[in-house]
Amino acid sequence: MFDDFSSFVTTLSQAPAMDTAARDAAADRNGQLTKPPGALGRLEDLAIWMGGWQGTDKPHVDTPQVLIFAGNHGVAARGVSAFPPEVTVQMVANFEHGGAAINQLCKVAGASMSVHALDLDTPTADFTQAPAMTDAECLAALKVGWDAVDETADVVVTGEMGIGNTTPAAAIGTALFGGEASDWTGRGTGVEGAALAAKTQVVADGLARHESILDDPMKVLAALGGRELAAMAGAIARARVLGIPVVLDGFICTAAAAVLEKAVPGALDHAVAGHCSDEGAHSKMLNHLGKQPLLSLGLRLGEGSGAALALNILRAAAACQSGMSTFAEAGVSEG
Amino acid sequence: MFDDFSSFVTTLSQAPAMDTAARDAAADRNGQLTKPPGALGRLEDLAIWMGGWQGTDKPHVDTPQVLIFAGNHGVAARGVSAFPPEVTVQMVANFEHGGAAINQLCKVAGASMSVHALDLDTPTADFTQAPAMTDAECLAALKVGWDAVDETADVVVTGEMGIGNTTPAAAIGTALFGGEASDWTGRGTGVEGAALAAKTQVVADGLARHESILDDPMKVLAALGGRELAAMAGAIARARVLGIPVVLDGFICTAAAAVLEKAVPGALDHAVAGHCSDEGAHSKMLNHLGKQPLLSLGLRLGEGSGAALALNILRAAAACQSGMSTFAEAGVSEG
Repeated sequence: MFDDFSSFVTTLSQAPAMDTAARDAAADRNGQLTKPPGALGRLEDLAIWMGGWQGTDKPHVDTPQVLIFAGNHGVAARGVSAFPPEVTVQMVANFEHGGAAINQLCKVAGASMSVHALDLDTPTADFTQAPAMTDAECLAALKVGWDAVDETADVVVTGEMGIGNTTPAAAIGTALFGGEASDWTGRGTGVEGAALAAKTQVVADGLARHESILDDPMKVLAALGGRELAAMAGAIARARVLGIPVVLDGFICTAAAAVLEKAVPGALDHAVAGHCSDEGAHSKMLNHLGKQPLLSLGLRLGEGSGAALALNILRAAAACQSGMSTFAEAGVSEG
Repeated sequence: MFDDFSSFVTTLSQAPAMDTAARDAAADRNGQLTKPPGALGRLEDLAIWMGGWQGTDKPHVDTPQVLIFAGNHGVAARGVSAFPPEVTVQMVANFEHGGAAINQLCKVAGASMSVHALDLDTPTADFTQAPAMTDAECLAALKVGWDAVDETADVVVTGEMGIGNTTPAAAIGTALFGGEASDWTGRGTGVEGAALAAKTQVVADGLARHESILDDPMKVLAALGGRELAAMAGAIARARVLGIPVVLDGFICTAAAAVLEKAVPGALDHAVAGHCSDEGAHSKMLNHLGKQPLLSLGLRLGEGSGAALALNILRAAAACQSGMSTFAEAGVSEG
């Protein structure tokens, strides 16, 4: 566990690595299955990788868990979103009543789904004026995510809702990977023209305000992030400690995850990119992390939607790896 | 129905178009759902398109049907595959016993699956020497596919098994779309170097042998195709007549489908490309048909595997379109 950023990073850095013996056993089994070698493409890589993390040559996606975290943002008052801030709490209610996209996608994926609203009545501070969160607030949000992971889950997805939260994600991207605010700031829910220029300026102002801490990823999360981003980072870290594979969602989820990778290189070895979103800088962020997305269907919704959509790709990979007959079992001639 | 190529083409050309009123109603509903406009990307296009074909603003993937056709090929004796011809019948047994990749993928997709072996003891003729099939043989195979479609299916997938069948697919690609045999001939199950050069020569020889009929798509199917290709074409045509959306699989399935589009422009308006396979010319063929693949995961197995994998993308699209709340229902503020 952890009670400050230092102990969080230490715990994360001590997380066990993939079970390479299980990975090798999975690769060996894969080579015996009734198909030409490599003919299932990325499904084979996914299955072998999942086998390594799950410690078996027959991986499974039986108990996937989708965690949705919601937060409100001080910068939302600066007009960075096409939607008003009250939509965050309205959408949380929509999640709870089953009416949002992620509810349908979790049903299709056979995933459990839980919604965690983080102090929606108390938005984070406007990061152009002060750190978005105090260290204590950030740690509390990390812990919400950490505690939300079910130890019996075999795959974890983290998603989010928070009007204005492509702005903190863009600020984190700029802080962690460099470049200009304009390289990382995009249209989010539909911001264009002068509003997009103003949003970019908000990001630039945030970077300038917190220039002194930009080399410390955890401080970046606190100063420029938001509660739902910290909670996603906490959940992804906990999954790493438990050895549970994670499917990353879009730009905001990936920004939260990137904090972990910058704090502890290799922290995202258990994570695959579920999709590449239509938010311009997502592709660039995935490149920085060395993650190739499974899907690229122009989604830009958040909520964990792209990752939930990708769960059935992981399930298919596991099903082929675990359910197919070998050449010997099926009496099929090898090439 | 049909009893010759001419009546087959006439029947196909008289198939009803999409229900544009249903499509427009689906688009209208889509615009009211609790998400920023367009935020579900291609899922929205898919849902509206399915709505048009299914005649409803709430499309569904409840009864998807996967049809696997198997055939043997005279050209297989020319060493065009990395596997021996007896693997076709062995793999049919594997399908029937549930041990192949497509069995696992159909389970994950919640799809029914049936296997149709077409005269495996009687390979088609070597197309470098004679037409692969007589017109009567080709019509019989078209009819197997036509009759295999379940009128109650809400989505249809066609897949195939046939050692050597990337060779007829490459020949059909060259015949329909032009270019050299080398533009359309690839490694299939794993043919490389001198064997790939020999395979390319077989395709070129087939084209030269049947030069006089290359402007007639149905004659091309008979002369250069195979029974499982004709059966897939028959099934895709039947689905068009019934107005059932189809998900295309890989190179061989797409080559069979391309015959229909060349015979009757618009014949594939009910078909979406499930994936782009790792067989080199598949991407080119999809471009010729104006089809953008849903998935690109390096698969090159056939069996309907890539299309079956894509079924859950269609299901997710339908589930969002049909299950989400509108802004008014959920009490969520619009942007």
